[in-house]
Amino acid sequence: MSPHRSLRDAGEFGFIETIRRDFGGTARQPGELGIGDDAALVRCRGRSVLSTDMLVEGTHFSLDYFRPAELGFRALSANLSDLAAMGAAPVAYLVAIAAPPGCPVDFLHALYRGMSEAASPAGMRLVGGDTVRGERLTLSITVVGETGAGKPVLRTGAKPGDLVVVTGEPGWSRLGLSLLSNGRPAKPSGWRREAVRRHLVPVARWREGIAAAGSGAVTAMIDVSDGVLPDLGHLVEQGGIGARLDTASFPISKPFRSAASALGEDPLAAFLSGGEDYELLMAVSPKKMDAFRVAMTPFPCGVRAIGTITDSPGVFVRMPDGRTVPGEAMPPGFRHFGSG
Amino acid sequence: MSPHRSLRDAGEFGFIETIRRDFGGTARQPGELGIGDDAALVRCRGRSVLSTDMLVEGTHFSLDYFRPAELGFRALSANLSDLAAMGAAPVAYLVAIAAPPGCPVDFLHALYRGMSEAASPAGMRLVGGDTVRGERLTLSITVVGETGAGKPVLRTGAKPGDLVVVTGEPGWSRLGLSLLSNGRPAKPSGWRREAVRRHLVPVARWREGIAAAGSGAVTAMIDVSDGVLPDLGHLVEQGGIGARLDTASFPISKPFRSAASALGEDPLAAFLSGGEDYELLMAVSPKKMDAFRVAMTPFPCGVRAIGTITDSPGVFVRMPDGRTVPGEAMPPGFRHFGSG
Repeated sequence: MSPHRSLRDAGEFGFIETIRRDFGGTARQPGELGIGDDAALVRCRGRSVLSTDMLVEGTHFSLDYFRPAELGFRALSANLSDLAAMGAAPVAYLVAIAAPPGCPVDFLHALYRGMSEAASPAGMRLVGGDTVRGERLTLSITVVGETGAGKPVLRTGAKPGDLVVVTGEPGWSRLGLSLLSNGRPAKPSGWRREAVRRHLVPVARWREGIAAAGSGAVTAMIDVSDGVLPDLGHLVEQGGIGARLDTASFPISKPFRSAASALGEDPLAAFLSGGEDYELLMAVSPKKMDAFRVAMTPFPCGVRAIGTITDSPGVFVRMPDGRTVPGEAMPPGFRHFGSG
Repeated sequence: MSPHRSLRDAGEFGFIETIRRDFGGTARQPGELGIGDDAALVRCRGRSVLSTDMLVEGTHFSLDYFRPAELGFRALSANLSDLAAMGAAPVAYLVAIAAPPGCPVDFLHALYRGMSEAASPAGMRLVGGDTVRGERLTLSITVVGETGAGKPVLRTGAKPGDLVVVTGEPGWSRLGLSLLSNGRPAKPSGWRREAVRRHLVPVARWREGIAAAGSGAVTAMIDVSDGVLPDLGHLVEQGGIGARLDTASFPISKPFRSAASALGEDPLAAFLSGGEDYELLMAVSPKKMDAFRVAMTPFPCGVRAIGTITDSPGVFVRMPDGRTVPGEAMPPGFRHFGSG
């Protein structure tokens, strides 16, 4: 394959054949079918779990600092994170892509490689897609999971008294974006490396999601794609409930603080409103907290209780100075169409 | 809802809520879940059947003559047609869309209405999606079907001696495009109405696909999206087989001939290379032709044997003058990235 071949040179079918060969994966089970027919055939145990996302160059990412493999990795992780938030097991994915005819095949190949690198450890195979011409690079991924014998965890279900629990350290992605917007560091180390990594190649918490759902302790779950505060807002949208968070319990490490300080970011704002971390945010029944902790022991990202579900609407945050601030007074998360 | 509200005014969540309310559908079965969580939950009997497509304004459609509801209808039909070509039963769909922030909500609402109008008769529900900002209207639909207890029909499987059978009259869509490219007629009647309808709001042959697969007579199937010749090429790609078509048996009606003549199109070329008709092209075992005919009786589109699968590679067409011409000598189908 010449390094300078474009999509136009390769042709639609030639390109698809390359992708099928290199990333198409093989059937897990008899009767399954991947790329090459009108549709793919997949066996899902229990219910099928489905989610789709679209990323547009300029809106969702900039090729100034995303390498194509990173872009693919991150896009697939974002979708995998949606399966994680249901406690579903990953099965397969489909990729629809629009690209300019002059787009180098190598660039697109790296993009698919990145997706494959995020998907393979989760046992997901690329089973289908579409490749079309478009002026702007646009990527739409659909992921398929299965509930198996387990029970999926929904966004609704949190009860007053439940603990609000988060995996890892949300906010790193925001710090990474802040760092990268001033140009990509050549050989980042320390907090810079962590921030860059967490923004460019975040790892979805699919193992943690399955374990959390399997513990039977989690009453509601969502992934942190918009930010801790906006996503917590989704968990308490129904049933007249709310939440109270305590900043003293936030998992904000020393490197996180150093990063925020060096970048002129408020660490609390980064944690609460950063978004795109693909951590998991859950409500956990306090009576089953022990079972939950045991289930989460294998995972180095850690889990932390950062607050409690309350019996009246609204999210409130107890600040370091002792004041309690309504969530709306905190910095807003990223809103796709708003001006804010 | 004000008629002049834009996506920017409505906001991402406001728009999604409108779509969920109007087109989100309800769960068919206990344990299913539609729009509103991290992922959708769907019960598929047998294997899950999955296909995804992407349409980009300017590449795949022009808003000069497509009304938004028609665009939605056609896009969904194209995907439904992929399920039809497997003999799968439709279950659900997901829609990822990129639109400019200034895009009127009414326009997008009509687009979703069109999708719903194509999907509802097939029992499909909108269960999820994504709405993002992008300069060009871009639509990515993923459809989910189920094999049930039946056996899906693949592209591979045709055997020498099988009859090549097609539903309906492929080529109308091409004639419609030809008509519309000179401006949309105000109140089309006769062949003009048929041509416009078949290009703008084609109905996918999902009922026919299920019946054909259920007859046990169909050894291979594909939908006519690229054109009869290119898609027949896919059916004979493997196993060293080919096909021989006879133009004398083509289902070319008098209105089709009138349309082609008035539009300066060759009716044979329109039939063989038109594409985007979403008819079904099959190989049918001659021994089971009776069972096949019985299974297809309920469908007014009709089925027609137009040729035979042969035991050597290549597709050949017997012309009205008695000459036999290789398929490659016929006009090429639409190629996404090529210059041809």
